[in-house]
Amino acid sequence: MLNIKYPVIQAPMAGGIIPPDVAAAISNAGCLGSIAAGGLSITELESQIGTVHALTRSPFQVNLFANDYPEPYAIAAINKELNTIRQRLGIPVIESYSFTTAEPLESYVDLCIQYKVPVVSFTFGCPTPSLVDKLHDAGVTIMGTISTVGEALRMRNLGIDIVIAQGYEAGGHKGGFTDSPSIGLMALVPQVVDAIDLPVVAAGGISDRRGVQAAILLGADYIQAGTRFLNTFESTAHPLHKAAISRAYETDALYTSAFSGKTARGIRNQMMDKLSHLEIPPYPYMNIMTKDIRAAAKNQQQVDFMSNWSGQNIRSSETQSISCVIAELTASFR
Amino acid sequence: MLNIKYPVIQAPMAGGIIPPDVAAAISNAGCLGSIAAGGLSITELESQIGTVHALTRSPFQVNLFANDYPEPYAIAAINKELNTIRQRLGIPVIESYSFTTAEPLESYVDLCIQYKVPVVSFTFGCPTPSLVDKLHDAGVTIMGTISTVGEALRMRNLGIDIVIAQGYEAGGHKGGFTDSPSIGLMALVPQVVDAIDLPVVAAGGISDRRGVQAAILLGADYIQAGTRFLNTFESTAHPLHKAAISRAYETDALYTSAFSGKTARGIRNQMMDKLSHLEIPPYPYMNIMTKDIRAAAKNQQQVDFMSNWSGQNIRSSETQSISCVIAELTASFR
Repeated sequence: MLNIKYPVIQAPMAGGIIPPDVAAAISNAGCLGSIAAGGLSITELESQIGTVHALTRSPFQVNLFANDYPEPYAIAAINKELNTIRQRLGIPVIESYSFTTAEPLESYVDLCIQYKVPVVSFTFGCPTPSLVDKLHDAGVTIMGTISTVGEALRMRNLGIDIVIAQGYEAGGHKGGFTDSPSIGLMALVPQVVDAIDLPVVAAGGISDRRGVQAAILLGADYIQAGTRFLNTFESTAHPLHKAAISRAYETDALYTSAFSGKTARGIRNQMMDKLSHLEIPPYPYMNIMTKDIRAAAKNQQQVDFMSNWSGQNIRSSETQSISCVIAELTASFR
Repeated sequence: MLNIKYPVIQAPMAGGIIPPDVAAAISNAGCLGSIAAGGLSITELESQIGTVHALTRSPFQVNLFANDYPEPYAIAAINKELNTIRQRLGIPVIESYSFTTAEPLESYVDLCIQYKVPVVSFTFGCPTPSLVDKLHDAGVTIMGTISTVGEALRMRNLGIDIVIAQGYEAGGHKGGFTDSPSIGLMALVPQVVDAIDLPVVAAGGISDRRGVQAAILLGADYIQAGTRFLNTFESTAHPLHKAAISRAYETDALYTSAFSGKTARGIRNQMMDKLSHLEIPPYPYMNIMTKDIRAAAKNQQQVDFMSNWSGQNIRSSETQSISCVIAELTASFR
């Protein structure tokens, strides 16, 4: 359904971790390259889509965040702690925030349609039925990220084309949209495959050909890898982030909501420890509140206040080139 | 190394869930049947080993708990809550406990050697080096349960023969021995396989031939299944426990320490909810403290106060016969 040579998808990772030219190269290599629109303005996304189109005729995807906007709460207590971190990093303390509304999801969808993006995926929520119709009318393939069978059924009922089943092992943000316990990929994939009649992408903890083969045997049609693509020479992840992955143990990549207000898996550091006992405002508010801290930490090489996302299959991953990663993940299909 | 026809192990489950004659039948069918010695006296274990020996010449295992005995603490607050549950079940309240010491692990090991048990496995801890030597001198194959690569390395350094890698998905007790985060099986198996040069058993979330094949492709030499063997006509699990598994969703099987003081995965119920915000005394103290409640709940058909252990691969499992389960799990090898 994706019209790609190998059933391998580069996980979309917000923050420009995989630049558009690298995403295009991944697509040219027969996998599905991805642009993560999370955090990008319409103009920035337009530019990235243009770059990918200029560099490949192969399919690629744009990933959109379809999150709700709950009321911000519990801001004051957490901000007190964030200000102690700001003082430590020597950046201005902040006493109040203006949570400006992001551009509506529909604008991003319209842009994708305008620029003939072949595949659009959603995380953190479901698109509305009218957005689904709009995308389908334009011939766009729609993927939706789920963490449970119940979420998969909701995506199926909405008319989504492909479901991305993300397991507990996955690095970065938990992409589903209900406040549910996480399911290990070994248990999640067969239950999703049995429950819906759509193609399924297995995501989380897959880092080499063994994981790819195992996921396919569990019934997945595609696999998605994040950490392996992040820890490459070509990714723009901070060098200290890559070094942390190369050095870490599987027990170091923990769930936290300290950076964004949403559960995400990253390598344990002081930021996670300092905030672990406080009530964290929900996404996207916490994400906005920590933006200056994450930026300053990167500038100052302070790995303890950066979000060093990683999945649990971490021991095998020295920093490599994208082509090595692709060769490994597609080995079973060549 | 286990001299079994199919690389399939019936997970040991304490409480006599799989009676010794059924364990023998599992061994006769070419898998590894198991006696769970946890909670059994020496005399009871002796009798169960006798039954298995009388019914099979094929290999079987005895599983032993090798847990520490930390100081009991936080007894009073939790006991207050347990007494409200006792009143509800109409059983006597308890004001103080005598935590009598269990018979030493060495006595169980000696019994296994005396009765020529072919395989002895350990959970909740490592055997001492002298117990390892004793078992090896007697020709016994030793398996050790681990939840992380670090634990696997400790088992390897001790001279254990086979490592049981138990993933986050597994039902019942987390069998490792450090206070570590859980690792999804998809990430755990390849990392353990790469780190040690011993045979590896994959455990957790495997419920059909797809899971078996996937685990073998990840590098496991054997697989272990628990929930599937528990939810059979032949198991002595409470009928309401089996019904709960047959009815549950994958999101219902949660981690709790409410029943035993150790992390275990079971179907969410009132007991788990009522105690979730209290400090729980460590194993084995909490296990001893809840014994009367668990027994009364079973007698009274009160599923809300029973420990309904289950793994995360739960949707596929109607109650079946053991022979159906074995046919499914061994399908790839026939």
